[in-house]
Formats: sequence, C-alpha cells, structure tokens
Amino acid sequence: MFTSEKLRVIAFDADDTLWENETIFNLTQERCKGLLRGYVDPAKIDDKIYQTELDNLAIFGYGVKGFTLSMIETAIELSEGRVTGLEIQKIIDLGKDMLAHPIHLIDGVRETIDTLSRETGYELMIITKGDLFDQESKIARSGLADYFSRIEIVSEKDDATYTELLKRHEISVEEFLMVGNSLKSDILPICRIGGQAMHIPFHTTWAHELVETHHLEGYEYYEIDNLRQLLDMLNK
Amino acid sequence: MFTSEKLRVIAFDADDTLWENETIFNLTQERCKGLLRGYVDPAKIDDKIYQTELDNLAIFGYGVKGFTLSMIETAIELSEGRVTGLEIQKIIDLGKDMLAHPIHLIDGVRETIDTLSRETGYELMIITKGDLFDQESKIARSGLADYFSRIEIVSEKDDATYTELLKRHEISVEEFLMVGNSLKSDILPICRIGGQAMHIPFHTTWAHELVETHHLEGYEYYEIDNLRQLLDMLNK
Repeated sequence: MFTSEKLRVIAFDADDTLWENETIFNLTQERCKGLLRGYVDPAKIDDKIYQTELDNLAIFGYGVKGFTLSMIETAIELSEGRVTGLEIQKIIDLGKDMLAHPIHLIDGVRETIDTLSRETGYELMIITKGDLFDQESKIARSGLADYFSRIEIVSEKDDATYTELLKRHEISVEEFLMVGNSLKSDILPICRIGGQAMHIPFHTTWAHELVETHHLEGYEYYEIDNLRQLLDMLNK
Repeated sequence: MFTSEKLRVIAFDADDTLWENETIFNLTQERCKGLLRGYVDPAKIDDKIYQTELDNLAIFGYGVKGFTLSMIETAIELSEGRVTGLEIQKIIDLGKDMLAHPIHLIDGVRETIDTLSRETGYELMIITKGDLFDQESKIARSGLADYFSRIEIVSEKDDATYTELLKRHEISVEEFLMVGNSLKSDILPICRIGGQAMHIPFHTTWAHELVETHHLEGYEYYEIDNLRQLLDMLNK
C-alpha cells in the first residue's frame, strides 16, 4: 500500500512522463520511411531501424544523434547503397528537427508540478536518461527547470544507477518516490532496491521498454493515468 | 603565486589532459578526407568540417556523434550530393571506431594520479565536457575511475557551470584546483571565479579551444608540461 509517511523527495522521469517524446521518434520514423519508399517496402523499415538501434546501443547509447545515425545506416543497407547524398541530408535534417522540436508537456503536468512545488514540502527531482546536451536543452525549454532542486541526466537507469544517485544525494530509499512511464527504467529498478514507484503509462511505449509480465511478479508498484492523480494519492 | 595551503579538491579535465582525444579526431578527419578525395580538393575539407561543426554545435553539442553527423553533412555538401551511400557508411564506421578507440593515457598520468591518491589527502575529481555515454565509457575504459571520488560530465565548461558544480559539491573556491589542457574550458573560467588553475598544454589543440592572448590579461594561472610536475608543485 502506498504511503507518503516518510516521503521527502519525488523524482520524475522526463521523456514521456513530463513531456511527449516517443511520438516525435515515431513521427520521424514515418517521415524516414516516406523518404525510402522508392527503395524498399516501408513495412520492412520499422523492424530494421529498431534492429540497427539495438545493435548500435552499446556504442551510441540512447538519444537522437544515435537514432539519426541508425536511420542513415538503415537507409544505406536497405537501399543497398543506392540512397543518395541528398536523401541522407534529409534524414540528418529530420534528426535536427527532433532536437529543435517544441516541448509539449503532457496533460496535467504543469499544474501538478506547480501545486507540488507551492503546496507541499517535497523536494522535486528529475532523473532522465539520454543525451546530456539534448536533455538539458529540453529541460530548459520545458519551462519547468526552476521547480526541480536536483536534476540528474544518466546514461542508463538500472538498480546500480538509482542506488548510486540516492547515496550521492543522501536520500534514503524510504524517503523516495520515483514517477515515470517506463516499467523497465523507472519502476522495476526502484522496486528492486526497495523504494516506492508510481507508473504513469504513456500511450506509446518504445518496444525496448516493454517488460514481460512475469518480470513483474513479486514487485508491487502503483499505477495512475494522469499526473494529477498523484496529488490525490498524496492527499493534496 | 600557487598555494596549496587550503587545497582540498583537485579536479582534472579528461580529454587531452588524462588521455589523448584530439589526435583521434584529427586522424579520423584525415581518413574522411581520404574518402572524399575523388570529389573535392582535400585542402578545402578541413575548413568546411570545422565550419559545419560550429554551425551544428548549438544543436548537437560536443562529442563524437555530432562530429560524425557533421562529417556526413560536409561530405554531402562538398560532393554536391554525389557521395555514395557506401562512402557515408564508411564515415559512420569512422565515428564508431572513434567511440571504441583504445584509451591512451598521456605520459605521467597514471603514476601521478596514483601517487596523489595514495600519498596525499586531496580528493580527486573529473570534470569533463561532451557526450555522456562516450565520456562514461572512456572513464571506465581508462582504468582510472576508482581514483576519483567525484565525476561530473557537463555539456559546457563556463563560469556558471563551475560555480554551480562547486556549490553543489560544497567546495569553496579556495579549496579547489582545476587541471586541464584547454585555456578556454579549464583555466580561464576558474580564474574568473577566483580559483586556481593549472594549464598543461596538449600538443594539439582544437581551433575552437584557442584563446587570444588579450583574453588572458589580468588572469594568473600556472602552466606545466607534464602532470608529474604537479607533484613538485604540491611538494609530494
């Protein structure tokens, strides 16, 4: 059962928890497929981009620049090298558009973060994964930065990352609540280290973030549909 | 005059201070020029890559993935779109080689860091700029990670960054020494916020890191040729 008795710090994932992200990746991938329609059956492109992304994850990490390079590699491979320089420039421009895309806050985010900040004593934190430069830019453009006393951008969100972060920030696990859309990155690692976690599913989830149900066995976490409900759970 | 009287924390830049980096960028750029020899006078390529990097810096930030995308854009533009998909794949592979390149520690680094760690009470810190995933990978592969109690990877190294880092780590500026190869990123910001800085020029400096002499006026910093000399300055 959720308890806010010892709660002191509420940490939020950013992409697809505070603002839309996966929708922009999906839209970009559709545009890339449109560019390559002359070379290959578009139905084959999604799987290949995803496979290329996975193959490159260990060397590129997460983020838009690695995704852009993976789209280019996919275009070259699926077109058997026939994709033109100008078409590849268009793929790079798709990547640049992603990096400059306006930030769309998810419904309920601004008012909930504002209420939490003004009407509760909880410290608010962001813990987000991905490209440092891009994430900092998005946090700045979101207009939310001033609500958060601590911001951590990490390359991976696993048990070790959270344990190290809590230690470094001198937060005990009982004082900590993690809120996010990804079971794999935001919820299960927190359950495993003994903390409380609040799941807010986003309407689109990247395939890599899906977790099989049997991995959830034995772990208890909480699920809400909209961040506003967090205020109810905290009785604010 | 340098004083170690109140010194408590010594922070090191990483790229071209602890290990070679710029040499790998230069080698990669030479290889890229070789790939494009059939399209364009190689002498024109350096300036164009540099200009493309600068144009992209505000959207890509620093790091290998942005550099790779800039090389691809340069290849497309200078070849007037004639560069082939397979040649672009070779440029992506050059970028991947950079990300997996073995770490070559600079002469004197391992023994000096080891001596500082074992024979002095100073806390050792890394403050490095660039791509989060790549920098973490390099720190891990350097074999030096365990010597450093604090590691900060930042997107820009300016006065505001250092001020915020010192505040967050509760380090007063009198307790702090920054060691690095870049006047622009490692030395002058520290001088401006009133700290001590030790310059170790690396044999190659990226053009963007050069600082005009008149910007140095009024700032006092220290310069050594090899990290070993730091031990002499600290009388160890």
